[in-house]
Amino acid sequence: MNLKEISKKLIKGDFSSLLGFANGNKNVHPSEVAKMLYSVPADTALKAFQSLPANTQGKVFSYVDILLQKDIVKHSTKQKASHILNELSSDDRIAFYSSVKGVERSSFLELLNEKNKDAVHDILGYPDNSVARLINTEFATIDREITIAEAIEHLRKNHKDNETANVIYVVDKDGKLIDDIPVRRFILNDPSKKVADILDGYCVSLKMTETKEAAVAKFMEYDRVVLPVTNTDNVLLGVLTVDDVLDVAEQKYTKEIQNFGGVEGLDYPYVKTSFFALIKKRATWLIILFVGEMFTATAMGYFDAEISKAVVLALFVPLIISSGGNSGSQAATLIIRAMSLKELTIKDWWFVMRREILSGLTLGFILGTIGFIRIAVWQNLHLYNYGEHWALLATTIFLSLIGIVMWGTLSGSMIPIVLKKFNIDPATSSAPLVATLVDVTGLVIYFSIAAIILKGTIL
Amino acid sequence: MNLKEISKKLIKGDFSSLLGFANGNKNVHPSEVAKMLYSVPADTALKAFQSLPANTQGKVFSYVDILLQKDIVKHSTKQKASHILNELSSDDRIAFYSSVKGVERSSFLELLNEKNKDAVHDILGYPDNSVARLINTEFATIDREITIAEAIEHLRKNHKDNETANVIYVVDKDGKLIDDIPVRRFILNDPSKKVADILDGYCVSLKMTETKEAAVAKFMEYDRVVLPVTNTDNVLLGVLTVDDVLDVAEQKYTKEIQNFGGVEGLDYPYVKTSFFALIKKRATWLIILFVGEMFTATAMGYFDAEISKAVVLALFVPLIISSGGNSGSQAATLIIRAMSLKELTIKDWWFVMRREILSGLTLGFILGTIGFIRIAVWQNLHLYNYGEHWALLATTIFLSLIGIVMWGTLSGSMIPIVLKKFNIDPATSSAPLVATLVDVTGLVIYFSIAAIILKGTIL
Repeated sequence: MNLKEISKKLIKGDFSSLLGFANGNKNVHPSEVAKMLYSVPADTALKAFQSLPANTQGKVFSYVDILLQKDIVKHSTKQKASHILNELSSDDRIAFYSSVKGVERSSFLELLNEKNKDAVHDILGYPDNSVARLINTEFATIDREITIAEAIEHLRKNHKDNETANVIYVVDKDGKLIDDIPVRRFILNDPSKKVADILDGYCVSLKMTETKEAAVAKFMEYDRVVLPVTNTDNVLLGVLTVDDVLDVAEQKYTKEIQNFGGVEGLDYPYVKTSFFALIKKRATWLIILFVGEMFTATAMGYFDAEISKAVVLALFVPLIISSGGNSGSQAATLIIRAMSLKELTIKDWWFVMRREILSGLTLGFILGTIGFIRIAVWQNLHLYNYGEHWALLATTIFLSLIGIVMWGTLSGSMIPIVLKKFNIDPATSSAPLVATLVDVTGLVIYFSIAAIILKGTIL
Repeated sequence: MNLKEISKKLIKGDFSSLLGFANGNKNVHPSEVAKMLYSVPADTALKAFQSLPANTQGKVFSYVDILLQKDIVKHSTKQKASHILNELSSDDRIAFYSSVKGVERSSFLELLNEKNKDAVHDILGYPDNSVARLINTEFATIDREITIAEAIEHLRKNHKDNETANVIYVVDKDGKLIDDIPVRRFILNDPSKKVADILDGYCVSLKMTETKEAAVAKFMEYDRVVLPVTNTDNVLLGVLTVDDVLDVAEQKYTKEIQNFGGVEGLDYPYVKTSFFALIKKRATWLIILFVGEMFTATAMGYFDAEISKAVVLALFVPLIISSGGNSGSQAATLIIRAMSLKELTIKDWWFVMRREILSGLTLGFILGTIGFIRIAVWQNLHLYNYGEHWALLATTIFLSLIGIVMWGTLSGSMIPIVLKKFNIDPATSSAPLVATLVDVTGLVIYFSIAAIILKGTIL
């Protein structure tokens, strides 16, 4: 039975197929059950989850989205919710508590046993964006002075079979991190060797307070799949696996792309975001952009005399300002992305400026030429009559495009660098600034060039 | 000595500090040497690389960028280049050959030994975007009928200590994949148990022909760090580790963001892309957008009589069309991202359409109200004189904004879905279509509403 058929049955209130799917078949991964629950309305998902046997619930819980997780905790008996939350792996537990705030968080914290409550409380003291919020506090440690055989014996007795046992950490008596050993090295070496003999002396680690973005960068730079996390005294406090970082990377990119598109980053997926939350996220930027763009009306107001003398000038306003906007957003995109990949820093501003001025002039020349040809062709094929001074008008368009594209490119590349200099996230704030600045100043450039070239003819 | 000091010395031709850095200190990761080489000009980087001892070169090579890799291969003796390329891990080797094309690829292929050449040749037969291009063909297999102790003995004899031994694969006599076992399970279980007894019967795998994006999704869905890759007959051909996918994910997001900003995805980082390559990547889209936007001049041409009668109408053109464009790009961003995260499919078009029409009307109403107030305030504070019929003009702006924002939102959300339906990548092609369509039709909506409302007064 496929996903769609099971979803249909779930919506009809028939949970037996999900049960059959989740229990009868050993080859079903909890994430597949979670995917099924995601595909049906919230109330159905909750009922279906509750129909699962207790041991399956625990496994599935960590794969469902936060909205359903909250629903489940709220609508379960205190005992059951407590059981689910205490049995979660420590990183999934932190993820859950990080996503609930205020009174809700306090009441949910009461569901944990003392040990877990203290642990969660500690971690929640670290900033939202820190590595601490992602760590798994279960990990395996050994002493460097024992043999491999002894180490294996120790692990077999003390450690559960889960992913945190893929890498073993060597610590000193104060719990300070000395090195990490992938567990494969225990079986690929002679068991009589000492642990100290198979250390490679090279250990990359993260600090609790590092940002999630820094962690993503470190995983990529060192090609690791798991990294130890320590406090400032180098005491090992947890481990971070790359799959958690992959989610973070994707969320980060999603917000970055949404910011580019002029939407405040959504907290939940589009389909799960309520209509009013969606309007709020969008209205904020739209209003900021709109208020900024109102200056275009002011700017054009200064040139109303010119427009009434030469209406033909108005025809090219959308073309002119959109070219400035497009070239500005190209430049901003390239620079913001290069900064976020650490290919560029604010110190490179002079390199960027020279390069972008030259790019702007070249691109402006290309567009200007096309614009000139467009007017010449329309005029000479009698598609539109720009008047006897059409060649001067075409020259105005040509020069304006060079000026505006160059200006757009320059602003687009410099604004992100300036914002970064003042510690403002360029991805979030550049778009409206670039758009407004380029549109308003673009109009001024255009009408000023027109005033100079067309003076005495059509103006 | 820090990165900056070493870079400075390198540029001066003093490679000894790099050498000291790379050799003298056991705690230096090859990626750190690579980072150093990235920070200096290409010719210095090449010379510095060549000054490294042979065994360090091999390790550093896989961490430097493709441009330097090509330089190194071209400027080394045939024997040395051949040694470096043959010693690479199979996934790094494929990555190198995937990035060189045509004659260069053929000549570089000659540097490989027969076995590696055949293997690379096979893999290059798969599409650029397939999982096959990322796999590591070194992996450890065992039989299910032996004991854990025998398996460990077998691995110790036959397998090198590298990351591919973190997970062991159980295959049948035809090489078909049965299951995967994290190596930790060998040490956490009694050595006298049979391999068959510690299998969990649940094995996620990838096909050679699956796309890289599908692989990213699978890693995230199942929280795995390594996945086996098979052909259509389920024969195990290689393994894929998540760190390679992380690079792919980042490249994918970079291209996606660049496409959003109206730039063709760059092949190399901004700073390493030549001026002319950069112009080419940008000019293409700028010209397409420019040609599209030329229709705005045509559209406005039809209304030149209205503009000459009421110049005041022209003043609001930039504000009106930018609002349509902004709301369109918001909607497009949200929908494209939701589709790429598989939260939405083309089948959801009706849900999206209803939602976006309602969103558009709401957002348009908000902006329209602000626009109306703006005109009323300016008029009554005598900041600008819109004439005796200013209230009608303000009503025109109000209604136009509702219409245009609704239309922008609708187009922005539907164009990506339509493109997807025709198997065109919405991320690449939506922006120009949305921008052009919304700007041109926005003008028509604006002037049509103006014609109706202002007829008999200022028109």
